[in-house]
Amino acid sequence: MTQTDFTHWANQQQLHIEQVLTQRLPKAGTAPLRLHDAMRYAVLGGGKRVRPLLVYASGAICNAQPAAMDVAAVAVELIHAYSLVHDDLPCMDNDVMRRGKPTVHVEYDEATALLVGDGLQTLAFELLSGELGIGGKAQLAMLHALAQASGSHGMVGGQAIDLASVGQALSLPELEQMHIRKTGALIRAAITLGRLCGNTLSDEHSAKLDHFAKCIGLAFQVVDDVLDAEASSATLGKTAGKDAANDKPTYVSLMGLKQARQLAQELEADALASLAIFGDKAQRLSQLAQFIVSRSF
Amino acid sequence: MTQTDFTHWANQQQLHIEQVLTQRLPKAGTAPLRLHDAMRYAVLGGGKRVRPLLVYASGAICNAQPAAMDVAAVAVELIHAYSLVHDDLPCMDNDVMRRGKPTVHVEYDEATALLVGDGLQTLAFELLSGELGIGGKAQLAMLHALAQASGSHGMVGGQAIDLASVGQALSLPELEQMHIRKTGALIRAAITLGRLCGNTLSDEHSAKLDHFAKCIGLAFQVVDDVLDAEASSATLGKTAGKDAANDKPTYVSLMGLKQARQLAQELEADALASLAIFGDKAQRLSQLAQFIVSRSF
Repeated sequence: MTQTDFTHWANQQQLHIEQVLTQRLPKAGTAPLRLHDAMRYAVLGGGKRVRPLLVYASGAICNAQPAAMDVAAVAVELIHAYSLVHDDLPCMDNDVMRRGKPTVHVEYDEATALLVGDGLQTLAFELLSGELGIGGKAQLAMLHALAQASGSHGMVGGQAIDLASVGQALSLPELEQMHIRKTGALIRAAITLGRLCGNTLSDEHSAKLDHFAKCIGLAFQVVDDVLDAEASSATLGKTAGKDAANDKPTYVSLMGLKQARQLAQELEADALASLAIFGDKAQRLSQLAQFIVSRSF
Repeated sequence: MTQTDFTHWANQQQLHIEQVLTQRLPKAGTAPLRLHDAMRYAVLGGGKRVRPLLVYASGAICNAQPAAMDVAAVAVELIHAYSLVHDDLPCMDNDVMRRGKPTVHVEYDEATALLVGDGLQTLAFELLSGELGIGGKAQLAMLHALAQASGSHGMVGGQAIDLASVGQALSLPELEQMHIRKTGALIRAAITLGRLCGNTLSDEHSAKLDHFAKCIGLAFQVVDDVLDAEASSATLGKTAGKDAANDKPTYVSLMGLKQARQLAQELEADALASLAIFGDKAQRLSQLAQFIVSRSF
């Protein structure tokens, strides 16, 4: 498969997930109007949809049910979107731009942005507990994995550590612990949810897939730090160089730019090696890993 | 059963739920320290635990599994607690006192309060998707009912309508729609979750129980409005008379105090009548309904 082929697949999947998100979000014009309008604003029309792509690519390994993958992809993306809305609030990062448009609290107001985040999180669990057409045991495992990845031992916990780390000298292991929770946990959950939509894997295969997930979750954050250090506001679509301005510890501030780039490449190699066991079925996952590490936006 | 007997039962259940909440919340002293400390501060050591009591009383109707009811009770209370933490934030009601102590954003800070609410909501779904020892279908139904009650068509939607209603002239049906979502939905969910922990009820019995739940959910809010109008800060433990000060429409502002009290009593009578079909098994639910309407705190 060529790069062109991957780009075509990713574009098709991005269009598809946009369609599914549009269908699954509260309809425009339904009460409460402003809340539902703002929920759609927060989710639709932007983003690379990396987590949904991971759900589909992971599901491809085990012949997963397309309808169940759609719901899993939506649920993971809603959790991601809610975290961005809350993260942008004045009491957190106080960001005014996101994906090239005003953040939710700027476009609407703070109270609405708070409720948008709350409601998007709930919607993720509402959809994932609806009719999926797969076994109840797998469905409960999906719900549990998503909740564990999102909560105080996962994403929310990572945000709390991030908050406490501003201006602090973190060690590399501490930085890694923060990112495993803040970004890594949800990326890992996306891959777990994709897998749970399909045929059960052997313990060995599951372990390999989960190792891939952990490597790629960490690589994602390392690349983010590299991009933040390198990028201009124009290409990133959000206020760039903010980490340094906010005195936040990053892989770049701790290791330097060159070493951070090298770490991303090592994590990518480790991730790709653990896909060998799956042969051709892991081609999308492998291409996605390369895309995540080499992305420039 | 006497009033003394009910008070004894309620006190025992309140002590029990406090113990279960203490066990199920993230342990004190585990990372991230400040977040976990604040999550425990937000939930423990206060509150009437009306929603957990409703779970247990509803479960008593259908011989529900005690262990499953514990988790359901915790999940519903965590959703309630998260909504209070976010509702108290400066961009919402800007309350500084709750249950006789400083609100979370006052005791900690706004960013922590935001993450506390986020994490408590996630924890509710994490616990409810764990091992409950009941059938997977009933468990998924519990998750779905709790999510529907909490989201943009339920509690969060009610908050959004509440927000938009400040200074607005609402009609009585509009006020009712707001409260059905804001308070009623979660109370109704508590009763549904208790039922789902036990033997399946007939359609007729389920409908009667759900009618009870709807009446009592609305009565709860009417009584809240009456108490807000009557109470002093000292007895309520929060800043009282705030509704009027904030120019929020209430049952009292729309109907007058006397009519609002009468409405609460009518709803109580309607609720109690629909319990007749259950005989003695509904005694706790019936006593709880009377407690909710006659409470003075």
